[in-house]
Order: sequence, then C-alpha cells, then structure tokens
Amino acid sequence: MAEAVGSLVAQQDAILVCGGLSGVMEAAARGAKEAGGSTVGILPGTDRVPGNPYLDVVICSGVGHARNLAVVSTGDVVIAIGGGYGTLSEIGLALKIGRPVIVLEGWRLQRDQGTLGIVYASTPQEAIALALEAFKHVSADGSRDLSY
Amino acid sequence: MAEAVGSLVAQQDAILVCGGLSGVMEAAARGAKEAGGSTVGILPGTDRVPGNPYLDVVICSGVGHARNLAVVSTGDVVIAIGGGYGTLSEIGLALKIGRPVIVLEGWRLQRDQGTLGIVYASTPQEAIALALEAFKHVSADGSRDLSY
Amino acid sequence: MAEAVGSLVAQQDAILVCGGLSGVMEAAARGAKEAGGSTVGILPGTDRVPGNPYLDVVICSGVGHARNLAVVSTGDVVIAIGGGYGTLSEIGLALKIGRPVIVLEGWRLQRDQGTLGIVYASTPQEAIALALEAFKHVSADGSRDLSY
Amino acid sequence: MAEAVGSLVAQQDAILVCGGLSGVMEAAARGAKEAGGSTVGILPGTDRVPGNPYLDVVICSGVGHARNLAVVSTGDVVIAIGGGYGTLSEIGLALKIGRPVIVLEGWRLQRDQGTLGIVYASTPQEAIALALEAFKHVSADGSRDLSY
Repeated sequence: MAEAVGSLVAQQDAILVCGGLSGVMEAAARGAKEAGGSTVGILPGTDRVPGNPYLDVVICSGVGHARNLAVVSTGDVVIAIGGGYGTLSEIGLALKIGRPVIVLEGWRLQRDQGTLGIVYASTPQEAIALALEAFKHVSADGSRDLSY
Repeated sequence: MAEAVGSLVAQQDAILVCGGLSGVMEAAARGAKEAGGSTVGILPGTDRVPGNPYLDVVICSGVGHARNLAVVSTGDVVIAIGGGYGTLSEIGLALKIGRPVIVLEGWRLQRDQGTLGIVYASTPQEAIALALEAFKHVSADGSRDLSY
Repeated sequence: MAEAVGSLVAQQDAILVCGGLSGVMEAAARGAKEAGGSTVGILPGTDRVPGNPYLDVVICSGVGHARNLAVVSTGDVVIAIGGGYGTLSEIGLALKIGRPVIVLEGWRLQRDQGTLGIVYASTPQEAIALALEAFKHVSADGSRDLSY
Repeated sequence: MAEAVGSLVAQQDAILVCGGLSGVMEAAARGAKEAGGSTVGILPGTDRVPGNPYLDVVICSGVGHARNLAVVSTGDVVIAIGGGYGTLSEIGLALKIGRPVIVLEGWRLQRDQGTLGIVYASTPQEAIALALEAFKHVSADGSRDLSY
C-alpha cells in the first residue's frame, strides 16, 4: 500500500518525503522512485548509512525521534500509513503545526471533544485524491506555494 | 482533572514533568505545587518567560514541538490528559520509546493491527494507581530506578 | 577546575545546569552537590542511565547533540570549561541566543570581524565573579528574573 | 566568497547543503544554482516561507537552532564561511560528529590542549581542494559513499 502511494505521489510530480529508514518508509520511497519521482529521507541519526536505497536526498537530522517533526513539517500534506508508534506521533505533530493529515491505514483516532482534522482514506488512490484536495486549500491560503 | 493528577503525583513523592506552558500543563503543575510536590517544565523555546508560575525547574529546550520528546523521555510513566494535538504526539513518542502511557481523558486510539500499549483511566485516582503499577513493572526490569 | 566552579556556583545559591554525562560535566555536578547545591543534567538520549550520580534533576532530551542548545538555553550564564568539541558548539549556540559566555579554559576564539561576546577567566573564582556580573546585566534588562 | 564556494561545489557535482536562510546561506545557494548545481536548505522552523529562492529541496526541521546539527550531519565535509555565531556552533557540532571542517573565513580557533581537526583555507578554490581531499579520506574509511 505504501508503495502504491509512493508511485501515485510521483505521478503527481510531487516530492515524497519520508523518515528514510526501512519498512513503510522504504516501500513508499521505492514506489516513488520506480515511478520516476523524487524522494527525500530524513533520518534520525548523524549518519546516512541506515538510509534506504531509494532516496535522492538524505538528511541526517541528528535529533533522533524528534526528526518526525521535520518529516511532517517538510511536507505539504501528510499521508499516514501503518500502525507504528512513530506514525502516531507524526499524526499528532502534523496536526499541531497545521498540516492536513490523510490516514490510509493503521490508526483510528477519536477525540473526546471538538472536531478532528483527520481524513480517512480506504485506498491509495483515495488518499492521493484527498491529499491533492487538501493541498489546494493550503495553497489557496497562500501559506504554501505550488512550485515545491 | 489535571490539577487533581498533579496533586496525587506529589502525594506519591514523584516529580511532575510537563511541557511548562499554560492550560493542562499549568493546572497539573499547580496541583503538584499546592500539594507540596516538585515540578519540572520543559519549554519549547530558549526563553523561560512563557513558563507557568508553578515550576521548580524550567528547562528551555530550544527545539520547539520536538521538546515533546523530552517531556515523555524524562518521565517514568506518561499520564495523558486532554485532547490536544501535542498530547497526541506525546502519546505516540512515549509508546515509541517504551514509556507506559495512561490516558485519562481526551483521546481514544485504535490500532488496525496488533495490541496497543495504552491503558485508559476514568479518574485521576485510577490514573495514578495505574501509573504506579506500570512504574513497578518498569523498575522491576531494571531500566529505571526508584530513587528518581 | 570544573569541580571548583560547581562548588562556587552552589555557594551563590545558583543552580548548576550541565550536559549530565561524565568528565567535566560530572566534576562540575559533584562540586555543586558537595557544596550543598542543586544540579540539573540534560542528557542526549531518552534514557537516564548514562547520567552521572550527582544530578538532582535528570532531563532525557532525546535529541542527541542538539541537547547542547537546551543546556545553554536553560542557564542564565554559560561558563565553558575544557577543550571539547561539544563545549565549542555550546559557546556558539550560547552566543547565538544571547547568553553571556565566560570561557575558563579550553578554547581561545578569534573572530575576523566585529567584537566577540566572550569573556575569559583565569580561575574558577574569576569565572564566577564574571558570571555574576554578566547575570546582573541580563537581569537588569528584564529578560531573566533573579528568582531562578 | 560564499557565492564562489557554492559555484565550485556545483562544478564538482556535489550537492550544496546550507541553513537555507539569507546572507551567507543564500549567497552559497545562489552560487551553486547559477553554476547548474543542486541545493538543499535546512530551515529552523516548520514553515518554508523564510527559505531563500535558490533551494531545490527545502527541509523544515522545526527544531530551531538545533537544525545546525542537521546541516553539518547531512554534508560530507563542512566549509565554514563567516563569523556568525551559528557558524561557530556548526564548527563545534561538525567536529563532534567527525565531519572534516574547512574554515575559509570568519573564525580562528585555538584549543588549549590537543590538536584541532580544522583546516584553514585562504580562497574558495583552496577550500574546495581541501574539502575534496578530506572527502577522499572519509570515503576511503567507507563511512560515506561517493554517490551522494
């Protein structure tokens, strides 16, 4: 599923930003690269060796799990895939800084009070469609430009 | 509710660690101080001025929302109160680094696959009881000592 | 020398903040504790085990060497001791965020252009006297209160 | 001088990594772009708006001045230009994590004891020659690959 999302991101001429390691991050990056796209991986440590082989740009953040903040800050829209705890923290951080969040799989969140700025998708295609829709709203606000 | 938790933390001779700002963080710190306890606030910026008035030790992390990682790392057990997005990120980060998480109010989380290391409490008293129970297990593993 | 500085910090009823590990950090903390003072150690990782035994409050920052920013942000005045590279980064970060820097030993810095906000001390006593002097100026500006 | 270094970096088919803001960072990025190279800017905040216009990839670290660690970690070799305090902190952080440091202008550092892993250059050309030399040694150690 991550690979399909990566592929669809690339087909939109968008850049895939991920945490740079294995698993979901590697699958998404592989999908993007195989579809001819560009990828950025933001690693936790100061060394690029743990980076997966599908990254065009490798960032060594040096701040450990705090790099999850950089991952969601760097993107325009966040698509969360999989039930990892790091992913959960990224959903929280993305919402905190105002990034639209599309959850494809892994987590179902309920807030006791107030609405929740999360949209759920059932398929990679739906996730990308929702991400593009959210991105248009962000761009219309002027806070993000389309050239990225 | 946060104030009651702070008070109960202090009554257990435990140190209350929080994000140091207003709202839930201030209520918890006030509860702990008024019950004669000790408090630590870990702020996002490099300046201590935004810290609430109930902090014994003020840490200026300088790393913005990434200080949420320091908040949960510094404690032995995490009690999450309220539906803030920062709180959600702290739940994720705490689980990622293996801290026990007690959710008192604010979030209900479901993971599509696998068990989830979260315990829900209905009252401050139950939250503290669960936190102490979790702490005993952590201490028995030897990874944390009781003297803190 | 670090131990003597720690001791003098404690005699001024000031709190000693350090990086929490061994070496200079441990010597300074030991000096402060043995003189009856209070100590804070801000560790790089998410685990408190590497902390030296002379810390009253242990902060687990989780952000690796980026915790050097927290170390200098948390203090009112920075006293740099020893020629470590981490110490050099702390001098730079402290100057960047406007903390007064007293260099006791380890580094001699020259800037090609402009003045440099560093004061050199020859002895622990002189370092403390210069730190107190710098702190008065900071306090007079209102950006830091004396109650810390 | 920064612009000349950026241009020479690009001529070596190397990627220029910088702090992404104005001043020296912008001059270096402009030099690289105008010579047909690729640039990465690692910003302190969560918003890409402050990034200069010569960046191909913009990373929003969200960790403030702690992003200086990411800047030096991400590169293979660090060329320090200018007497800024942030630059000083980057020299310290780079040495701490074992990156070769070439100082072109701005700082002269002396360590009271031990040797110091800094090389001084007088011109952009010399800086690049020294950087390439240092990079060969790093690569020979196997810790960094040439494909970056």
